[in-house]
Amino acid sequence: MVTPADLAIKDLGPCRHPSPVAEKLGEKATVYVGEADKVLFDDRLSAVLADASGARPPAFELAGPRNRVFWDPKEVRAGIVTCGGLCPGVNNVIRGLVLTMAQSYGVPEIFGFRYGYEGLVARFGHAPMRLDPRSVEEIHRMGGTVLGTSRGNQDPHQMVDTLEALGINVLFVVGGDGTIRGAMSLVRAIEERRLSIGVVGVPKTIDNDIKFIDRSFGFESAFAAAVDVIRSAHVEASGAKNGIGLVKLMGRHSGFIACAAALASADVDVVLIPEVHAELDGPCGLLAHLERRLARHGNAVIVVAEGAMQEHCTSSAEPMATDLSGNLKLKDIGLFLRDRINAHFRARGVEATLKYLDPSYHIRSVPASPSDSVYCWNMARNAVHAAMAGNTEMLIGRWHGRFVHVPMPMAVRMRKQVDPTDDLWMAVVEATGQPLSFC
Amino acid sequence: MVTPADLAIKDLGPCRHPSPVAEKLGEKATVYVGEADKVLFDDRLSAVLADASGARPPAFELAGPRNRVFWDPKEVRAGIVTCGGLCPGVNNVIRGLVLTMAQSYGVPEIFGFRYGYEGLVARFGHAPMRLDPRSVEEIHRMGGTVLGTSRGNQDPHQMVDTLEALGINVLFVVGGDGTIRGAMSLVRAIEERRLSIGVVGVPKTIDNDIKFIDRSFGFESAFAAAVDVIRSAHVEASGAKNGIGLVKLMGRHSGFIACAAALASADVDVVLIPEVHAELDGPCGLLAHLERRLARHGNAVIVVAEGAMQEHCTSSAEPMATDLSGNLKLKDIGLFLRDRINAHFRARGVEATLKYLDPSYHIRSVPASPSDSVYCWNMARNAVHAAMAGNTEMLIGRWHGRFVHVPMPMAVRMRKQVDPTDDLWMAVVEATGQPLSFC
Amino acid sequence: MVTPADLAIKDLGPCRHPSPVAEKLGEKATVYVGEADKVLFDDRLSAVLADASGARPPAFELAGPRNRVFWDPKEVRAGIVTCGGLCPGVNNVIRGLVLTMAQSYGVPEIFGFRYGYEGLVARFGHAPMRLDPRSVEEIHRMGGTVLGTSRGNQDPHQMVDTLEALGINVLFVVGGDGTIRGAMSLVRAIEERRLSIGVVGVPKTIDNDIKFIDRSFGFESAFAAAVDVIRSAHVEASGAKNGIGLVKLMGRHSGFIACAAALASADVDVVLIPEVHAELDGPCGLLAHLERRLARHGNAVIVVAEGAMQEHCTSSAEPMATDLSGNLKLKDIGLFLRDRINAHFRARGVEATLKYLDPSYHIRSVPASPSDSVYCWNMARNAVHAAMAGNTEMLIGRWHGRFVHVPMPMAVRMRKQVDPTDDLWMAVVEATGQPLSFC
Amino acid sequence: MVTPADLAIKDLGPCRHPSPVAEKLGEKATVYVGEADKVLFDDRLSAVLADASGARPPAFELAGPRNRVFWDPKEVRAGIVTCGGLCPGVNNVIRGLVLTMAQSYGVPEIFGFRYGYEGLVARFGHAPMRLDPRSVEEIHRMGGTVLGTSRGNQDPHQMVDTLEALGINVLFVVGGDGTIRGAMSLVRAIEERRLSIGVVGVPKTIDNDIKFIDRSFGFESAFAAAVDVIRSAHVEASGAKNGIGLVKLMGRHSGFIACAAALASADVDVVLIPEVHAELDGPCGLLAHLERRLARHGNAVIVVAEGAMQEHCTSSAEPMATDLSGNLKLKDIGLFLRDRINAHFRARGVEATLKYLDPSYHIRSVPASPSDSVYCWNMARNAVHAAMAGNTEMLIGRWHGRFVHVPMPMAVRMRKQVDPTDDLWMAVVEATGQPLSFC
Repeated sequence: MVTPADLAIKDLGPCRHPSPVAEKLGEKATVYVGEADKVLFDDRLSAVLADASGARPPAFELAGPRNRVFWDPKEVRAGIVTCGGLCPGVNNVIRGLVLTMAQSYGVPEIFGFRYGYEGLVARFGHAPMRLDPRSVEEIHRMGGTVLGTSRGNQDPHQMVDTLEALGINVLFVVGGDGTIRGAMSLVRAIEERRLSIGVVGVPKTIDNDIKFIDRSFGFESAFAAAVDVIRSAHVEASGAKNGIGLVKLMGRHSGFIACAAALASADVDVVLIPEVHAELDGPCGLLAHLERRLARHGNAVIVVAEGAMQEHCTSSAEPMATDLSGNLKLKDIGLFLRDRINAHFRARGVEATLKYLDPSYHIRSVPASPSDSVYCWNMARNAVHAAMAGNTEMLIGRWHGRFVHVPMPMAVRMRKQVDPTDDLWMAVVEATGQPLSFC
Repeated sequence: MVTPADLAIKDLGPCRHPSPVAEKLGEKATVYVGEADKVLFDDRLSAVLADASGARPPAFELAGPRNRVFWDPKEVRAGIVTCGGLCPGVNNVIRGLVLTMAQSYGVPEIFGFRYGYEGLVARFGHAPMRLDPRSVEEIHRMGGTVLGTSRGNQDPHQMVDTLEALGINVLFVVGGDGTIRGAMSLVRAIEERRLSIGVVGVPKTIDNDIKFIDRSFGFESAFAAAVDVIRSAHVEASGAKNGIGLVKLMGRHSGFIACAAALASADVDVVLIPEVHAELDGPCGLLAHLERRLARHGNAVIVVAEGAMQEHCTSSAEPMATDLSGNLKLKDIGLFLRDRINAHFRARGVEATLKYLDPSYHIRSVPASPSDSVYCWNMARNAVHAAMAGNTEMLIGRWHGRFVHVPMPMAVRMRKQVDPTDDLWMAVVEATGQPLSFC
Repeated sequence: MVTPADLAIKDLGPCRHPSPVAEKLGEKATVYVGEADKVLFDDRLSAVLADASGARPPAFELAGPRNRVFWDPKEVRAGIVTCGGLCPGVNNVIRGLVLTMAQSYGVPEIFGFRYGYEGLVARFGHAPMRLDPRSVEEIHRMGGTVLGTSRGNQDPHQMVDTLEALGINVLFVVGGDGTIRGAMSLVRAIEERRLSIGVVGVPKTIDNDIKFIDRSFGFESAFAAAVDVIRSAHVEASGAKNGIGLVKLMGRHSGFIACAAALASADVDVVLIPEVHAELDGPCGLLAHLERRLARHGNAVIVVAEGAMQEHCTSSAEPMATDLSGNLKLKDIGLFLRDRINAHFRARGVEATLKYLDPSYHIRSVPASPSDSVYCWNMARNAVHAAMAGNTEMLIGRWHGRFVHVPMPMAVRMRKQVDPTDDLWMAVVEATGQPLSFC
Repeated sequence: MVTPADLAIKDLGPCRHPSPVAEKLGEKATVYVGEADKVLFDDRLSAVLADASGARPPAFELAGPRNRVFWDPKEVRAGIVTCGGLCPGVNNVIRGLVLTMAQSYGVPEIFGFRYGYEGLVARFGHAPMRLDPRSVEEIHRMGGTVLGTSRGNQDPHQMVDTLEALGINVLFVVGGDGTIRGAMSLVRAIEERRLSIGVVGVPKTIDNDIKFIDRSFGFESAFAAAVDVIRSAHVEASGAKNGIGLVKLMGRHSGFIACAAALASADVDVVLIPEVHAELDGPCGLLAHLERRLARHGNAVIVVAEGAMQEHCTSSAEPMATDLSGNLKLKDIGLFLRDRINAHFRARGVEATLKYLDPSYHIRSVPASPSDSVYCWNMARNAVHAAMAGNTEMLIGRWHGRFVHVPMPMAVRMRKQVDPTDDLWMAVVEATGQPLSFC
């Protein structure tokens, strides 16, 4: 259950300064966001009627520029850090943060920390980069992050040491689940020292699996890149007798990329995602389904999310390891399926040709699509507006088509996943023609 | 003011048949949409609190498959017609309609009417095409519409004649504002004859200017194509001393494409849209602003929506003509600006080089992007689900991130426009650095 | 040494028929190719002067339409077969063969054999497809081959059985080195039965390693696709501290794709090809060079052709296996280098992050680029003109910018390779800055 | 007639210095180009036999690095100037010139002159840019020219003043026909002052119409961009009853882009080029042909080169004007045809829908394709090698697949055009199915 308190945003204090944005644009030019501008957590009619007790239903604070700001912009020294794996659009976000701070607010000093949270720990020796409008002007044309990145969190106290040493009072953190947890520890450490440093997040997840973000930045660019690879798998599968194209896509816990890429490409016959259990053997298993498909159509394209079917390739005897970000190290379901499918058809005496494609790094490194470029610009703008208003321990979310403020603890409370009883999976089943179970 | 009654969807009667979709997928597999599944018209907290009178706030019916359907699928003879200008994704919509009808419901006969509403009028002599899964399998790889299109409405009674003659009981209409009005006349004529024929719309507007559609299909593909053209304008402008790139984009009444393309490209200095008045002459006019920009930066890129600044290029003496769709014929603001800017700099003795790009047909004809492909699939699926449930005189909308049913009269009541005091225009102003007025 | 005799083209007899092409276009419209239209094998001045003995220097027969043809077009029954791995443009070639035969010559019957040479052997049970202009109209928009393909040769006598049974008198073979050898055996078998069946080749090699083909079709499309992948490797390498991007590209015996992709991308620091020996260990080895590069620049991108450095990953104890096409099965130099580089930096206590990309199937499956589309059209046209003139056991080549006829035995006599003392490798060395040996 | 003397390259004197390239790469590593390395002007066997008189046939000097160079690289002060209209790849050429000079030869100072020849004339006040490897590293990712450009020549004496003032001894000129003539005047002026300044050209012509350049840089990128536009025209034409897509492409005097784009797109029904006369009216005219085509197929796509059919839209009464580059100002054949076709069908009472696309600026501004990127790199490298060897008044050409040195007077002696009796036009006629005359 979500209560109104869960959605309350922390701030560093009242907004004492007139906003330079408001000064530039005039009082009437823009509707500044006020106290009552909140978005209902659940906007179905039934939800509101149920709550007709008179209690205020939970609602998110709307993102956007405020009439008054907490910080005197001339005294802001901002920092930006990018963490975790690459994702299309990170450079667009960096660019948007810098341009909005410099041009809309007149923030004089902006530092880019290098190689993720390592850049905030002195002993790694990564000197921060100075960022200004000129240095970020063209960076969105390339994928990746000009700041570099690394996985894993660092000691929050050492990170605060660096922030204090440089006089940083606003820090933007671009990262996923683990990075947000790291930012929450950092806020704890800041509060322990009674410092006034705002920490604002721009959520990054190529898997689109963070709650309260209708769509994460880079997600559309990623599945668009996947469509090209699926087309290649389809072409390879069509070119051989009993040709099978097997494509492994991102998706550790959530199958959004696999689903969206399959819907967009229209060339996929089977989609395997972590949220939907699938048998491998037996008459209701993938292998038997594949055999029937080849017999009828002569070829097949399978898309598997990296987190799917893990129960088939792990053994209870062997506990799963974790990586630097604390993520469980998954078994490689792509190689596993490749080998099992090949073995199956060899055993059945059927000549089949499987081509396996694993385009992960290629997809993560593409530049942001035009649509993601717009989206990143708005994420970045709103993150700056939120930070200037003195908010902290929050991130920019997207709820029912509007940018909102999401408390960090809410964002990491649970993961967004494909609901196998809901619309997206239904669309996939209708589009691929795959049965709900392989029977 | 919108009342609950405004959002009520017409249907042809109660749903008497079990749904084949439900039979295939099982009762529990999917959450079928029920009576209470509506989406609040306004999901801001303040709106709901204000309406705490006990009255039900207005809410849209959720789109999606129903447990029971109105039509016996085996008796459905469906028609599809595409109207108006080209827009990326029309072929994807046709494909999605045909595949969902044939594969999810087992509809046996589907006709594609040729060249818009002309195809429904016998005297034009356009024989309809038979459509089945095989004939539409690959059509989404190309832009345009395999059915052809035309502008303008036709006599509704002659259209009903054709529907009756062919025994069509479900008609899907893909088109914009004018097309929807045509469909409403058609529904009148059907009702006059007391026929049971459902008319369901898939709203098409490359300008993204239909209300209750967060984002129209093809819109993202269109502004993505525009970004390439703007980059060319930027390259041309940078290559010449006092280089000016002028790009005319679609947008008769609404500047959404101009705004989105400018945000996505990051190369634009001035955006001109119908919703925002701009002076041409005088110290606060575009020409003076342009001169200042060239003096400081040496080049400039201008994006102008086709409906912008019409007051500058029309005279009250000469009343505006209308085209076959009943749209006012706009003056060509692109050529007008090209000539006025050239004349201005000539008069001022400043050597400037203006390159004018008008990519309209190129943009309209691109294939749907991966993201639009997913979106078109969902628009089409939900249109079939709505039609099978017996609904009529409605279209598929998208409200706060969910697919909903929108009564046709609501959809054409007013046009969606860029609000110059709201977030999108604010984002453009921050991104381009252009002043609110050219002063 | 090449003698004029080596370049003589076999034909099936004198050209008895007026050409329908000539009839359509008129005598003067086109310069028909005559006896004296040959292209010098070596067009350097020194070569011709050296041969001023009066002997005719070796010269290739020019490709193109003849005034008279050997076959009566109305009696031609043609076959097309595509063999070996996928390569961009195969569908364009099929399309060009069919359209030129049907439209320029009026050939009435064209068969497409399925799945390579298997399709010519009855026991595999692959029925041939009928091909006509309508069925091939759109196939060039997709990569791959609509006929399917397989590796390896088949028994020539069983293949002739099929040709005789179907009454085929002209066979087009699209394939590489091994396929051409197969076609030569087929010609032997045809001659033994004293049949009049022409066999004309369209050489296909994504590696661009067939002699007398300045540039093979699909090669430009392939290295263009590789450029995208290299950019991703560059982005990944730049995003991490001591980031290394390692890309394995095609090139079993010849490094043309690796060289061209490196030159085109401008993001590559080291290129490894089969023709140039490279040490791995020691002060003049790749590993030491890489370490120096990381110390100076912080990241590196390596492109390795699949056939490079095989001496490092094979042992004399273990003889190399061969695949169905008779090609030696190479060791996977990509995985080998990945592991050796990782081990090296681990042993040196240097934290480095290597990302490995192996895009082979993706690259092979892309559609032909516009430039390759033109090229494929010309290869196909000229193959038809050559076949209609009664030539056999020959293929279409490209020599010094002109299409020529190449005897099959000449084409397989040796392989085209990058000459480490010549211009291409020099251009790579200048572009990457890599030393001639890693010292 | 071309004589050996015509192909002799001017140089500034003997090569007195060892080449740093040779020093770096070692004597044996690369085959340095020697005196005898020339390419026969005509490599057809018949040509050589005819010349068996013992006379040396004309031959081009091969491009490439020399063992010894004329200039002491440390004393070279180089300049680069780009002139005329934009063309894909100019930035790649600039980058290649700078990198090869700086990295292969160690040239210490390189100036980029701004806005074409204007940048060499003091009174325009365009300060030159300093160029070094860092400043050009990323410029190839964008189209256009970072130096800017302008049309037209300037007074050669004023240009030499600037070269002398800056101490430039090597000047690279990137431009077309008119620019090369300007460079020849510049060489005259240099010679009059008895200065030792080398002038080396990199020929730029998006129309591919300079002699002795098999293929000009940017040409492939240009027609590839045109293919996209033609596809849009095809989609528009297919979407309307009697739909006509009309695309105007570059090609003032030569139809190479129109031909190549038509061959590559496979969607074109009529190609109109300057080299082939076409009637407009009458039974053998374009209009009658178009009417027959619509009656049979329902739609048509026409590609017209800008210089085609000029005789139809000019009158002898009105003499043609010239632009700054001295080019005749062509009448707009695109608008002319659009209006004449529309008028024709209106007069005939046939409802037809014509969509006109004029993508010129868009095509000129695209970045170089991967294949052009390789080509530009080689053009630039070889220009530097030629300049360092002391050559002057020459440009880099491409003859029979090899880079060669072409004397400037030879290059402008005549224009390269499509030969209507030769292979390219034949390929177009076969591909489009258009008749040789519209009868």
